[in-house]
Amino acid sequence: MSEFVFFYSPGACSLAIHAALEHAGADFEPVRVDLRQNQQLAPNYLLLNPQGRVPTLVAGGIVLTETVAIADFLDRRFPAAGLLPRDDIARALAQAAIQRLSSDIHPLYRALWITDWFAEDPGAHPAMKATAAERLKAFHAELEQRLAEGRWGQGEPTGFLAYYTGVFLRWSAAVAPEGLGPASEALRRRLANDPAMARVLAREGVSLDSLKRATD
Amino acid sequence: MSEFVFFYSPGACSLAIHAALEHAGADFEPVRVDLRQNQQLAPNYLLLNPQGRVPTLVAGGIVLTETVAIADFLDRRFPAAGLLPRDDIARALAQAAIQRLSSDIHPLYRALWITDWFAEDPGAHPAMKATAAERLKAFHAELEQRLAEGRWGQGEPTGFLAYYTGVFLRWSAAVAPEGLGPASEALRRRLANDPAMARVLAREGVSLDSLKRATD
Repeated sequence: MSEFVFFYSPGACSLAIHAALEHAGADFEPVRVDLRQNQQLAPNYLLLNPQGRVPTLVAGGIVLTETVAIADFLDRRFPAAGLLPRDDIARALAQAAIQRLSSDIHPLYRALWITDWFAEDPGAHPAMKATAAERLKAFHAELEQRLAEGRWGQGEPTGFLAYYTGVFLRWSAAVAPEGLGPASEALRRRLANDPAMARVLAREGVSLDSLKRATD
Repeated sequence: MSEFVFFYSPGACSLAIHAALEHAGADFEPVRVDLRQNQQLAPNYLLLNPQGRVPTLVAGGIVLTETVAIADFLDRRFPAAGLLPRDDIARALAQAAIQRLSSDIHPLYRALWITDWFAEDPGAHPAMKATAAERLKAFHAELEQRLAEGRWGQGEPTGFLAYYTGVFLRWSAAVAPEGLGPASEALRRRLANDPAMARVLAREGVSLDSLKRATD
């Protein structure tokens, strides 16, 4: 029996935790919960994660949810893996970038894709999608500049921040299909060649430069 | 000169960091940036916080942003203050609750109050506000149940999770003016009597059971 059971959906934000687990050398059993098939709404999964979201990590009979909370847990459980910086200031700057993604940018992608969450009336959706796409394009331009200047976190992003940023580089295909700037593309290539990320991309059947799935 | 300079707006989510700084006994200079007067858009403030948000914490010449990232920084800087649980599992459960507030519930309050952020077309706003209010009411009912069962974090919420939850108890006046359940009200009273929280509520001129300001 594995130490952890890890529930993910291909290409969702769970990808960052998946890569972190692999990078840390954790003993885990990956379980696919395909959002495209609404498997997150299966009664058995809702018992674990009442909000019907991924990721979920089951550890020693305890159910852990929320991407960023799980990353912090794994950083403590696997201190040698370097998932978060050790230095207080470098860590605070990495955490600020992580938090920007989780509490500011992720909700905009939700507004773009799961628009119902923010307005049940579909009449409101075109205006919401237009604003979300515009703000996300602006974010990706800002991210490009910050990466170029070493100000996304502190210096070159590593560990969980790099993996989590990779999720959003992938998602950017929806708002910037023409591609991103050179610093973003360099990070995308570096992550695609990271051994842990490469293994989980293959397992999930996705790539970092397209929203398409290998299994489509 | 103080060790930290702390920028807050009365009653905003910066309240939780304000209480954490006070609880930890930090040497800080509080600076008011009143969102109601759009002071967050002043050029000098935007240099510190380009997104025009609160809180911002300046520490040793470094500018830290994002509530949850600052909480983690303060937990490391003041380990005796108990801002986050020491036990790995208790900490992961507290972090999941914190993350739920920052990445799921806070964006719904933003949709309710700063609706422009999610749709520039005001025609979409009534539908968005209706959905946000409905989901926030449902969240406060869930929070009541979790608090009653000791499942908001693990056991009675303490430290930063308690302070941060207090912000949302205050904000709930917008969606549940009739009040919350007994567990939520008990936490609200406990926080109002917490010495650190009581001092910062007085400094900010707000209370936990109303959106009104003493300075209105």
